[in-house]
Amino acid sequence: MRIDQVVPALQWLRGYDRVALTNDGLAAVVVTIMLIPQSLAYALLAGLPAEMGLYASILPLIAYALFGSSRTLSVGPVAVASLMTASTVGAVASRGVVDYASAATLLALLGGLTLIVMGLLKFGFVSHFLSRPVVSGFITASAIIIALGQLGPLLGIALQGATLPSLSQDLFTRLTEVHGLTVAIGAGSVAFLMLARYRLSTWLVRLGLEGRSVEMLVRSAPVLVMAVLIPLSAGMNFESAGVPLVGQIPSGLPAFSAPNISWHLIQELALPAFLIALIGFIESVAVGKTLGARRRQRIDPDQELIGLGAANTAAALSGGFPVTGGFSRSVVNFEAGAETQMASVLAALGIAVAAVFLTPILYFLPKAVLAATIVVAVISLIDFDTITLARRYRTADFSAVVITIAITLLAGVEVGVLAGVVASVGLHLYHTSRPHFAVVGQVANSEHYRNVERHTVVTDPHILSMRIDESLYFANAAYLEEMVFAQAALREHLTHVVLMCPAVNAIDLSALEALEEINTRLIENDVMLHLSEVKGPVMDALQRSDFLSHLTGEVFLSHHGAVTALRAKGTADPALT
Amino acid sequence: MRIDQVVPALQWLRGYDRVALTNDGLAAVVVTIMLIPQSLAYALLAGLPAEMGLYASILPLIAYALFGSSRTLSVGPVAVASLMTASTVGAVASRGVVDYASAATLLALLGGLTLIVMGLLKFGFVSHFLSRPVVSGFITASAIIIALGQLGPLLGIALQGATLPSLSQDLFTRLTEVHGLTVAIGAGSVAFLMLARYRLSTWLVRLGLEGRSVEMLVRSAPVLVMAVLIPLSAGMNFESAGVPLVGQIPSGLPAFSAPNISWHLIQELALPAFLIALIGFIESVAVGKTLGARRRQRIDPDQELIGLGAANTAAALSGGFPVTGGFSRSVVNFEAGAETQMASVLAALGIAVAAVFLTPILYFLPKAVLAATIVVAVISLIDFDTITLARRYRTADFSAVVITIAITLLAGVEVGVLAGVVASVGLHLYHTSRPHFAVVGQVANSEHYRNVERHTVVTDPHILSMRIDESLYFANAAYLEEMVFAQAALREHLTHVVLMCPAVNAIDLSALEALEEINTRLIENDVMLHLSEVKGPVMDALQRSDFLSHLTGEVFLSHHGAVTALRAKGTADPALT
Repeated sequence: MRIDQVVPALQWLRGYDRVALTNDGLAAVVVTIMLIPQSLAYALLAGLPAEMGLYASILPLIAYALFGSSRTLSVGPVAVASLMTASTVGAVASRGVVDYASAATLLALLGGLTLIVMGLLKFGFVSHFLSRPVVSGFITASAIIIALGQLGPLLGIALQGATLPSLSQDLFTRLTEVHGLTVAIGAGSVAFLMLARYRLSTWLVRLGLEGRSVEMLVRSAPVLVMAVLIPLSAGMNFESAGVPLVGQIPSGLPAFSAPNISWHLIQELALPAFLIALIGFIESVAVGKTLGARRRQRIDPDQELIGLGAANTAAALSGGFPVTGGFSRSVVNFEAGAETQMASVLAALGIAVAAVFLTPILYFLPKAVLAATIVVAVISLIDFDTITLARRYRTADFSAVVITIAITLLAGVEVGVLAGVVASVGLHLYHTSRPHFAVVGQVANSEHYRNVERHTVVTDPHILSMRIDESLYFANAAYLEEMVFAQAALREHLTHVVLMCPAVNAIDLSALEALEEINTRLIENDVMLHLSEVKGPVMDALQRSDFLSHLTGEVFLSHHGAVTALRAKGTADPALT
Repeated sequence: MRIDQVVPALQWLRGYDRVALTNDGLAAVVVTIMLIPQSLAYALLAGLPAEMGLYASILPLIAYALFGSSRTLSVGPVAVASLMTASTVGAVASRGVVDYASAATLLALLGGLTLIVMGLLKFGFVSHFLSRPVVSGFITASAIIIALGQLGPLLGIALQGATLPSLSQDLFTRLTEVHGLTVAIGAGSVAFLMLARYRLSTWLVRLGLEGRSVEMLVRSAPVLVMAVLIPLSAGMNFESAGVPLVGQIPSGLPAFSAPNISWHLIQELALPAFLIALIGFIESVAVGKTLGARRRQRIDPDQELIGLGAANTAAALSGGFPVTGGFSRSVVNFEAGAETQMASVLAALGIAVAAVFLTPILYFLPKAVLAATIVVAVISLIDFDTITLARRYRTADFSAVVITIAITLLAGVEVGVLAGVVASVGLHLYHTSRPHFAVVGQVANSEHYRNVERHTVVTDPHILSMRIDESLYFANAAYLEEMVFAQAALREHLTHVVLMCPAVNAIDLSALEALEEINTRLIENDVMLHLSEVKGPVMDALQRSDFLSHLTGEVFLSHHGAVTALRAKGTADPALT
């Protein structure tokens, strides 16, 4: 294994030149400006002190830059992972086990180490087990919960809970506490940001600006809001008017420290940490692939596991919380011209500078402004397209989306994503639990056998030929049994059943048991069981069991050979042949 | 729906005669004698008062007799369900939430209602999702835990815990407390019962007895041990010698009562209740099918859900605990000549008589005797055959057995069975996540296309023909993508990719997304994507999406048609054609 496979950064550092540095530097400036409000906002969303958002945007970026496989992915706190963090640490901290911050940091550490181990084991394929309806439904439901939760800071009231019922209930009971000036700031910010996102680009293009600078101006709208509202808040003394502000943020860089670890806490946080890391990984790979495709750069899922694992471990060691590759920040980075991960390293330096020098200014920032940036960002995550497509396309996919959304909204993010996976896998098993099979007959004067329901074919009253069109395994074994007996029961003069297996790629132990059962029950009715056209690997497996010695009939190489031989035997009682 | 479909008992009651009554009556006597020690033993195994075992063997038998679909299945407490009950109620009761007995009764109620609802919804098929390796591994591991746990009463020491590590640790720390006389009684009983089970029948046959009476004599060995040891215990005052006895059992019939219900407790017990009920259902259907096959009687899984649900509900309402169809008791019932469920009704009456009149005698029974009957019974549940077969047969099946056994032993029954299901489903998905596909070429002078690796075929440098041999879904969609691009990358002059789909029975939303991705990335390299031989239902689904309008190429009815048409177009740049 070569060193530049372990540390992909070495691949682009070789031959890194002044032109690339200039491009990366410019991108870094844009990204830094965008990251400051975003980092603060997601830290508050996760229920953590604002500075943790800044800390989570320094070292993790550098760790990913070294070990990640995407050139332009930008790592840091993101909305869905922050909501999941809030939900988990809220449950642990409310029981007084440990403080919020320690739990969040431990969550990053456990997730990070899990990802690294998965990466070393080449477990990138696990992401395939989360189907698109589950991921889409989960992100949509999370976005709704996040947006609803942000009504708290937007209205100046305290909202608790991480499910639709608990948030709604809280909202209704506290509606009387709404704080006028806060609402004005919040509503104004949301309105401006929405206009910026959905209208500004059209206007700017009409003014003659070109695509890339338009995109960057639009994305910097949150900074513009901050630039207006911080002086306003300081000058008009919003604090004494009762507007909740970000307040004191300790200035300086995070200190390296090992997270507070206890065995009990690890047991409690292991599953949520895994889920946060896994969802983050899937989100991140999706973003990385999208960007990679545009520059024909490849994303290696196994290397991404290691890169994101390193980023989360770095977050844990420097007072941060779970991070992953974010969509909007990565797009900004890409559009701003980033060529390599050097842009992220420079952005990390930018955030570090902000953490040292900017915190006194951020004191005056109303929390409602940060809430507004979150709401506008997550609204775009609501994925109506997939819901509509799934509804038109296939009931199973639509059911999976609906179940995932409903359970996430009603029971929270962890239960929701697990229920989605169970639904998705369950529906798949249910669908394949009825294997496709066909009763076949001979196409006259040929060696071909076709479905009796679709073709004019010749059948023999003594022989039932059934073609099995799928691999046999535990979920469809019982159905096979039922179908064979149902078809056998229709034929009075039956003496032979031949299962034609050209499409059976595997027979698992449960299906083997079903075949034994079919064999036993058929011979009780004086009917022999035969197989034909069994694939090589399946035959090898059968030879390792006792099935072939129990089989009352034979295994034929071709189905035509089977039918010819059995016809030649005539209709004699199989017990006598 | 006819009344005798709802209450299957009406089917055999019609035409019930004196001969059947005589046979059922004789079987009932044998079963009653066998059930008394078994019921007491399993109640103690479940950590419950002995009388609950008797209560669980009265009304549940009658409820099953009315609603069950098997003529000879005998319902009552069984080893594995009792262990699962012990593990669940132990956890709840140790936290002081509620007493043991109430928790066990609620467990029966929740399980019973769940089974009834599943039966009404015709959810019998869910049993297919537990593969044979999982069920076999789970029962083997449970039997080991049960046998090890019974070393407590056999040695006269108190053992706690329901996992291999906790039991072993407990055993070693308490070995000094072993009680000599108890060990003698226990070891003697185990030795006698083992001899009875594995040697007695040979001896009896040599003495000239016939099969059926041999079987019945062997099965009544536990009663023989009781008949010897109860007078011995009373006469020699085992109690004052420190031998733990069954002791005071309240005599009389159980009072009807609603279980102690709290919403919090229901939440805590819902999952374990479901698992106990499901495992019990699967065990029971397996027994019922085995017996049914010998008399050509059919078992209806949906009706079994209702029968077992009614039995558990009856258990809950009469002070019992979770019950299901047991293997040894059903075999005894069958061998003793039972013709209908009337045998079970009469056995229930027998147990009721015992509960009223026999309890003063049972006072003197050493607990070690009951432990001995459990050990000898569960040892036969250890299923080495399936483990050996799985090891020879297929790695995936063997892995599933080993994972289920290991996790059940190490982490207990609930985690074990869940881990087994996850492993079983996960391994299946992993296997199907690499769909079988073949690059195909034309068999010279024919319209047939075959695998290029197995046949001598003609291929075209501009056309890549790939046959997909499995349905496309979320777990194999990414692999399809990889394979298409890997094959495409090998062909310098490629202009067309044709995916041949005769074996694709479904394309889910995730796979649709993968096809879109393949389509987009191929055209970036000036390669067009086509499909051929798409099945009707799949085509219908594709037409409900936008995929066909994005598709750069065409959908051909036959693969040969596709190749002919594309060859005719020549090698021109597809952008120009």
